[in-house]
Amino acid sequence: MLHFDSDYMEGAHPEIMRRLAETNLEQTVGYGCDQYTEHARQLVREACGAPEARVFFLVGGTQTNATVIDGTLGYHQGVLAAESGHISVHEAGAVEATGHKVLTLPSHDGKVAPEEVEQYISDFYRDETYEHMVAPGMLYISQPTEYGTVYSLAELEQLSNTCHKHKIPLYIDGARMGYALAAEGSDVTLKDIARLSDVFYIGGTKVGALFGEAVVITNPDILPHFFTLVKQHGALLAKGRLLGVQFETLFSDGLYERMGGHAVGLALKLREAFRTKGYEVAMESPTNQQFFRLPNEVMDRLKESATFELWGPRGKTHTMVRFVTSWATREEDVDKLISLL
Amino acid sequence: MLHFDSDYMEGAHPEIMRRLAETNLEQTVGYGCDQYTEHARQLVREACGAPEARVFFLVGGTQTNATVIDGTLGYHQGVLAAESGHISVHEAGAVEATGHKVLTLPSHDGKVAPEEVEQYISDFYRDETYEHMVAPGMLYISQPTEYGTVYSLAELEQLSNTCHKHKIPLYIDGARMGYALAAEGSDVTLKDIARLSDVFYIGGTKVGALFGEAVVITNPDILPHFFTLVKQHGALLAKGRLLGVQFETLFSDGLYERMGGHAVGLALKLREAFRTKGYEVAMESPTNQQFFRLPNEVMDRLKESATFELWGPRGKTHTMVRFVTSWATREEDVDKLISLL
Amino acid sequence: MLHFDSDYMEGAHPEIMRRLAETNLEQTVGYGCDQYTEHARQLVREACGAPEARVFFLVGGTQTNATVIDGTLGYHQGVLAAESGHISVHEAGAVEATGHKVLTLPSHDGKVAPEEVEQYISDFYRDETYEHMVAPGMLYISQPTEYGTVYSLAELEQLSNTCHKHKIPLYIDGARMGYALAAEGSDVTLKDIARLSDVFYIGGTKVGALFGEAVVITNPDILPHFFTLVKQHGALLAKGRLLGVQFETLFSDGLYERMGGHAVGLALKLREAFRTKGYEVAMESPTNQQFFRLPNEVMDRLKESATFELWGPRGKTHTMVRFVTSWATREEDVDKLISLL
Amino acid sequence: MLHFDSDYMEGAHPEIMRRLAETNLEQTVGYGCDQYTEHARQLVREACGAPEARVFFLVGGTQTNATVIDGTLGYHQGVLAAESGHISVHEAGAVEATGHKVLTLPSHDGKVAPEEVEQYISDFYRDETYEHMVAPGMLYISQPTEYGTVYSLAELEQLSNTCHKHKIPLYIDGARMGYALAAEGSDVTLKDIARLSDVFYIGGTKVGALFGEAVVITNPDILPHFFTLVKQHGALLAKGRLLGVQFETLFSDGLYERMGGHAVGLALKLREAFRTKGYEVAMESPTNQQFFRLPNEVMDRLKESATFELWGPRGKTHTMVRFVTSWATREEDVDKLISLL
Repeated sequence: MLHFDSDYMEGAHPEIMRRLAETNLEQTVGYGCDQYTEHARQLVREACGAPEARVFFLVGGTQTNATVIDGTLGYHQGVLAAESGHISVHEAGAVEATGHKVLTLPSHDGKVAPEEVEQYISDFYRDETYEHMVAPGMLYISQPTEYGTVYSLAELEQLSNTCHKHKIPLYIDGARMGYALAAEGSDVTLKDIARLSDVFYIGGTKVGALFGEAVVITNPDILPHFFTLVKQHGALLAKGRLLGVQFETLFSDGLYERMGGHAVGLALKLREAFRTKGYEVAMESPTNQQFFRLPNEVMDRLKESATFELWGPRGKTHTMVRFVTSWATREEDVDKLISLL
Repeated sequence: MLHFDSDYMEGAHPEIMRRLAETNLEQTVGYGCDQYTEHARQLVREACGAPEARVFFLVGGTQTNATVIDGTLGYHQGVLAAESGHISVHEAGAVEATGHKVLTLPSHDGKVAPEEVEQYISDFYRDETYEHMVAPGMLYISQPTEYGTVYSLAELEQLSNTCHKHKIPLYIDGARMGYALAAEGSDVTLKDIARLSDVFYIGGTKVGALFGEAVVITNPDILPHFFTLVKQHGALLAKGRLLGVQFETLFSDGLYERMGGHAVGLALKLREAFRTKGYEVAMESPTNQQFFRLPNEVMDRLKESATFELWGPRGKTHTMVRFVTSWATREEDVDKLISLL
Repeated sequence: MLHFDSDYMEGAHPEIMRRLAETNLEQTVGYGCDQYTEHARQLVREACGAPEARVFFLVGGTQTNATVIDGTLGYHQGVLAAESGHISVHEAGAVEATGHKVLTLPSHDGKVAPEEVEQYISDFYRDETYEHMVAPGMLYISQPTEYGTVYSLAELEQLSNTCHKHKIPLYIDGARMGYALAAEGSDVTLKDIARLSDVFYIGGTKVGALFGEAVVITNPDILPHFFTLVKQHGALLAKGRLLGVQFETLFSDGLYERMGGHAVGLALKLREAFRTKGYEVAMESPTNQQFFRLPNEVMDRLKESATFELWGPRGKTHTMVRFVTSWATREEDVDKLISLL
Repeated sequence: MLHFDSDYMEGAHPEIMRRLAETNLEQTVGYGCDQYTEHARQLVREACGAPEARVFFLVGGTQTNATVIDGTLGYHQGVLAAESGHISVHEAGAVEATGHKVLTLPSHDGKVAPEEVEQYISDFYRDETYEHMVAPGMLYISQPTEYGTVYSLAELEQLSNTCHKHKIPLYIDGARMGYALAAEGSDVTLKDIARLSDVFYIGGTKVGALFGEAVVITNPDILPHFFTLVKQHGALLAKGRLLGVQFETLFSDGLYERMGGHAVGLALKLREAFRTKGYEVAMESPTNQQFFRLPNEVMDRLKESATFELWGPRGKTHTMVRFVTSWATREEDVDKLISLL
């Protein structure tokens, strides 16, 4: 059976496993105060071109989103997000559980439109009763989005400008950041991300690590006492050096970029094959998630040999499906899948 | 200047003021354990045809909504509401502040469509990843709605059936209940409300009281230990008898119904006048809130002699406005307004 | 039957009732934006000698405490309070419900000791693991305390200095402030309270109003967007002018002070009588709450003619009891009680 | 340098590392739905003699405590715990952040006294104003405690009886459970723990795993929809099989017991040596944490060759210190330390 369900089906990149084994019996202090974590912080700062940034390593994405958002919003504020955003839909109300509302914006293939953000904020303050309502206090976007799409540099600059004009932080969920950086035609670098946002995270779980997300705080005015908040959210790993060792490895020898490129290359190969065979590409995704609208009989036949996700309910004649590649996907599996089309 | 901004511009019905003065220097125990509150509970139960219902008196609407909803939802659940619902928009995130998400449904002139509620719930459980999402755990509706519209008995029965089929409580926000009961063509009684919902409240603040909302819990399985929850929400009035005396008065001698009828009668007179003069009635409201789309020059002229709310932003040529009558509105003021048209 | 259970057994001072009746049918805007509330704010600022203070009127004490504390604390902080403090014990976990811990200090007849506050804070930061713990982020005291005792000016200055040295706000719960200002031997004025604290409230509910507490924020750096927070906590009264009218009356013609003096005078008379008759005064309270340790047979006999609270469980031979006077207590009732001793 | 700071200074037991490497490139579904996790669940159930128990694997201790406690308490309830309990002191207010109060009991070398639990609960309901206070809704204990002490079987039975008599769940924090099971003179088995509590967790982080805690819910009436709650708390690991593989290994071939015995054996050897050399044993701990009161000059000399924790502030002449052994401690290191005494 071939597996294209998600990008977190395997463990970690072998180099990470090697380093974890190598350092396994060393004794270090806990909670991320060890030398591996400190070195990893340094490497992340360099990769981001942000020598002053504060860097924290957390375990998972939902946890990271809830901790960052809870810590940034004022009591009268909510977080703006696409209605398809992960925090809006798939995190079991983790943001609301911290007491804050997710204020939704229309989703354009997973993205928010800069002008709609601007409109939302200015409409809000034009309403005479705005003090009775939840104020937009942060913008959440994901790069790439839950639909595999990416923001261009121009779009990010526009969003960044809008946020800063209105004095609200821009937060970028980079659960799959490695795949965005390698996206077909992308003009956005990690340094751009760091420069244009106030806080963001670089995903490890879906890009080669066993687990782990690197939170990078470039705005010095937000998230003071973040360590305590991380602890309070149950997001502080006792053996913090496990995260340090992993991110040290990810950000050495270009591993993170290499893995992103590998996955995206195979995803585009898959897209091309589907298109060539005459199937409808449902979303123009330049990253490792690909969406197709397949005739139901084709989908049913593929299911005998491969696993993948239905994206929404089964349709009458056609159904939208998602295929995901990752750092671990083998080209031979992609080729086998293509041969089944 | 004539005032049609809202239905909470005056104090209380004179009979309430008389009773408060009369009992002012009596000494009673606090927190609603006095005989006036007990009698008021009894009168409310009778009016609702619900001899077993538990009745609590709280101070205001946002407070009541947050307390009831927080207390009813399980940790994995959110509350379904129209996207125009008061809890969705105008309560400063009070529900989210208690840790719960408001799950929005399309608004049809303020109402939710029974079939869309059904669809939402059944779609939810058909999604394979539903355990990663906030489960619909309660339905919130308002009667009348924020747009003055009312649910018919048939609609309420359908909503009640849907909720109970899916084992989620139906909660009715009756901040303006008195005006719904008197609505033009309405076939819904307070006994229907009590029979079809699990918990609801009867608004006093907007219908003749200084303040106060009567929460009626007809479902014996929800909201145990509600007294402590009310205290925790800061919603327990020390001199609880102030609420008791007010609701005792509202539910004696048909006062509550009478006030509703008065306000609705004048609202309909106003609507008829606007229509007769050729203005567009923007919403077919049978209650005390009336919405018109006025040419801007007419609106501007009216503003010199009357206060009322813009409903949304000023349009290029026409603007939607809201006029509200109440138990206290004087017919001569309505007539003066009409003469200005 | 004579009643000495609490200071919220009656309605409001007749002058307040008169003003509420007089203004009852006036039409004003809601939510405290009316002229009565504005005038009341002005009077409170004057009484406090704090022309720049922001003043908000809320409905009740638990609500006020939760709103102020929730709004002031950072996410990593808790509030210091005596273990006997109202927020520690009798508010149903309202502070914790907003996500914050109450950090308790020993109670000395209801008061915290300035040196123990200093000790707590400096010990906290000396602990190497302090980032894993809840930081002291505010000091809560009540004046008078739940035991009727009051802080002297010297004590308040010491507490204020300690707080400001450590950059944490001092918050004073003045639910019974009127009785503290009139306390036997007190050297603390309202202006001192305003000068030494960052935020405090002046209680109306227990001192002559139907309900209502005036929050006075003298520190301009805390509690921005407080209006929205008040709304979110369900603490915003629709007919805000009811609070305005009441506090306007309380702070006109010295009414607030006069009522405090009346209650304290009668309380001291009662204490003197108990002492003269040979009963043990259990706490040296200079305000309207008096505590005695009575032989059980005396207590049982008194109970036939008077109501009062047991303070703690019934003892084997003696039991501690509380008698409370208020602005509304009649001297003839005090005399009757004394004659029963 | 010798390290006795804590029991989480190394990575994982080599057998766990071997299994993680071995399974690293296998593809499985996420979120704990894979076969490794299912097998681990089965092994845990067997070890607990609880074939019907629900078993969930979370990442860390603070996270587990907050999730379990938040999910079990009703809105009017708090959790009883020793004032020295981890949730009371060292979890950055994680329980309060979910809206619940920690109700503290006196600590007797880390333990609560059964009769004081009984007293607390019965006193609570004897207080006439109990509905204004946070009700005790759960008992939290740790086995072993933060001071290394353990409850005897008789004590656990008494606590269990008290809890069940008052219908509140008993929750046992077993962050170091492996060391309690191997405690000197202990008569408590894992099956006893499962039988006497309603929910507990078996710690992996401090007993041989990289990370991970196994939550065992034996009471079928609590914590429904726990999966969603775990997600909401950010405690759901995407690659859940990492936890499955680890606990499968821990509960195969007696590894968990063996590691516990190893650590405790060395700890007792250390205690014996300190005692023999004439130093004061500060707490009679039968597990892997040992506490001594050392003359300051001895402590200072030891610090040149070994790391360990000060337990509280440095005293004038003597200071209390903690030495911790673990599954990974080498006997030669213990011997070296002893030779330094």
